[in-house]
Amino acid sequence: MPSLDCTPPIAGITVIDLGRVLAAPFATSVLASLGARVIKVERPGAGDDARAFGPHHNGKSLYFTSVNCDKESIALDLKVAEDRAIFEQLLDRADVLVENFSPGVMDALGYDWDTIHARWPRVIYGALSGFGKTGPLSGAPAYDIVVQALGGMMSLTGFPKSPPVRVGASIGDLTAALYMALGIVSAIHKRTRTGEGCLIDIAMLDCQVAILEAAVTTFTATGEVPQRLGSRHPSIAPFQAFQCKDQWIVIGAGNDALFRTLCMALDRSDLLERAEFSTNPLRLASMDSLERELNTTLTAATAQEWISRLMTAGIPCAPIQSVAEMAAMPQVAARGMIVPVDDPMLAATCVPGNPIKMSSVTPRFSRGPAPALDEHRHAILAELAVQKNGRISPPHP
Amino acid sequence: MPSLDCTPPIAGITVIDLGRVLAAPFATSVLASLGARVIKVERPGAGDDARAFGPHHNGKSLYFTSVNCDKESIALDLKVAEDRAIFEQLLDRADVLVENFSPGVMDALGYDWDTIHARWPRVIYGALSGFGKTGPLSGAPAYDIVVQALGGMMSLTGFPKSPPVRVGASIGDLTAALYMALGIVSAIHKRTRTGEGCLIDIAMLDCQVAILEAAVTTFTATGEVPQRLGSRHPSIAPFQAFQCKDQWIVIGAGNDALFRTLCMALDRSDLLERAEFSTNPLRLASMDSLERELNTTLTAATAQEWISRLMTAGIPCAPIQSVAEMAAMPQVAARGMIVPVDDPMLAATCVPGNPIKMSSVTPRFSRGPAPALDEHRHAILAELAVQKNGRISPPHP
Repeated sequence: MPSLDCTPPIAGITVIDLGRVLAAPFATSVLASLGARVIKVERPGAGDDARAFGPHHNGKSLYFTSVNCDKESIALDLKVAEDRAIFEQLLDRADVLVENFSPGVMDALGYDWDTIHARWPRVIYGALSGFGKTGPLSGAPAYDIVVQALGGMMSLTGFPKSPPVRVGASIGDLTAALYMALGIVSAIHKRTRTGEGCLIDIAMLDCQVAILEAAVTTFTATGEVPQRLGSRHPSIAPFQAFQCKDQWIVIGAGNDALFRTLCMALDRSDLLERAEFSTNPLRLASMDSLERELNTTLTAATAQEWISRLMTAGIPCAPIQSVAEMAAMPQVAARGMIVPVDDPMLAATCVPGNPIKMSSVTPRFSRGPAPALDEHRHAILAELAVQKNGRISPPHP
Repeated sequence: MPSLDCTPPIAGITVIDLGRVLAAPFATSVLASLGARVIKVERPGAGDDARAFGPHHNGKSLYFTSVNCDKESIALDLKVAEDRAIFEQLLDRADVLVENFSPGVMDALGYDWDTIHARWPRVIYGALSGFGKTGPLSGAPAYDIVVQALGGMMSLTGFPKSPPVRVGASIGDLTAALYMALGIVSAIHKRTRTGEGCLIDIAMLDCQVAILEAAVTTFTATGEVPQRLGSRHPSIAPFQAFQCKDQWIVIGAGNDALFRTLCMALDRSDLLERAEFSTNPLRLASMDSLERELNTTLTAATAQEWISRLMTAGIPCAPIQSVAEMAAMPQVAARGMIVPVDDPMLAATCVPGNPIKMSSVTPRFSRGPAPALDEHRHAILAELAVQKNGRISPPHP
């Protein structure tokens, strides 16, 4: 008989989120999508720095909204005794604490890992920083662009002769956030057998190194330093952008069978007779000349004409879409990947949906609002008072 | 008393990996780092397509090695009865099945979700594809460059007047892999309360939409379509690359206090008196002129000179490093982020380490080799035979 439990996978988990700006807040946003209750603890007055990031809409930062939906907010000054007491009552009920202060800040507040672990042994402590808690750079300041630059990602992105290019989303933060969310859920799972929490020390730089694909392996084995390749792939050809009569498209014909199909669909079976294009390694080595050949053909018709023809033939290809064009795709709508925020101040504003689609979880087609600063103080304090008086049992007695 | 359980968080979990090339194999590589046993089921003869991707070293693909460390391999033809029986015996003992075939392939083999779930109710089934199992594009072929193009990422990366740029690592695949790993561990956790597995349907396109940061929110609220910005950030200034006398560096002075410190460190306190640079939104709007001012100063000395000076002042900054420079960083070594592969055929070859550092898990400073095709057939069949005879109890009796 099928289970009737359609709740999200980590429903019942409470996360205390000290995160600021992007990396830790995105990690807890992902945990909220998976069913966690997330209580954002912000500094009184200004709150999370991201509340000041433009553009604003009806006084609300759209940037802040994009990573703080479905959370509660309480403003606490962790240097003030009364607020510390509230914070500690929250920890009494929490499963997870997440922060992305510079290493040392939590220690100075008396909330270092050893103290937290001794007093709240079930709490999982996620510390996210630029360089992590160990090594000579531990404690140095870092932002997304710093780890994109140090980690090698910028050395692989863009054209060799152009000025440097940053990946257009903050993947230094976002990747670290995904690894943090994964570490936290893994630690929650381990806690079911040990009863104990642990410290998870995630460094943005480490996560950049982790996603370099074959670059580390290739460099250490051969000594060859991977270079910027524009839109090309280091191991597959053709797999890049091409210019049509009106605009650019991408084509990924990543194996010999697809390359054959591509040449037929372009009426360029002559290319199949050229030895230098006969295998993927040979095409990689001859890509300049193959690119010239393909461009000659592709610039003769529009992107739309080529895409219909190549799609019919089964060749992976696509127009290079703006965010507006992406947002208009029926596929994106069908998957619930752009969903409205249930916030009366942000009518018509949407945020990305949850890409983790599970057959056992009821899908959602909207997200709750990002909280105003301190919006949930009253409700949270009332809840703590009730629990203190024993009328509601705390989750971990 | 502290727990003595220093095993990885998902130790004891067995993953059957039908993955090919990058997205699913990277997801299971991450699961292996978290302690799962991963058995790669490959087609006889050629195996995973990535085995053919260059460069090769002593006959082994470095690309394949980069995402298949610590796995076992068995070659099975899922159209042949005898091999199907072995595959099904593996499923008897598995917790997770992962595949990235085009939607429909597993159905045609008789291994659709309903069949799997009816016969192996505890198995978590992770299906990863370009567009997912629903929507008008479900089933269409996709590769990394296709979802980078469709999802809007390429429209945000590079310079407005240059040809299109692909992010230099396959983040279309890698991001989907991280979401898949997160979905799987979440489902493993949920199974501890329900006893049941579920289907996890991850689409590469969905995951691109999920990491667009504020772009979706800003576009839907304001109608403004985000553009390519070279190395600049859409919401923070200055936060980009600048040219020094010898090479480029990045500087992230993301708030007013850091901007003030930056101007002082550059001996450009005159910039603090200019109204158009006085707040982050004003600096964003005047970034062309601020960039000219900063470049005038920065091109007067070398990258190394500026970096020492700015680091001393506490300004986040960095050289734009090649993969070779990154690999030589003491910080990367201290964090165990580039570790040797224990493979006698690949002496001196390294792969990225595990960025999820947990206090409760014994760290590893190497990874096991990527398997040769069918390398573990004999051991796996022996294990299945022993279990069949009842001498070892299967994990889920």
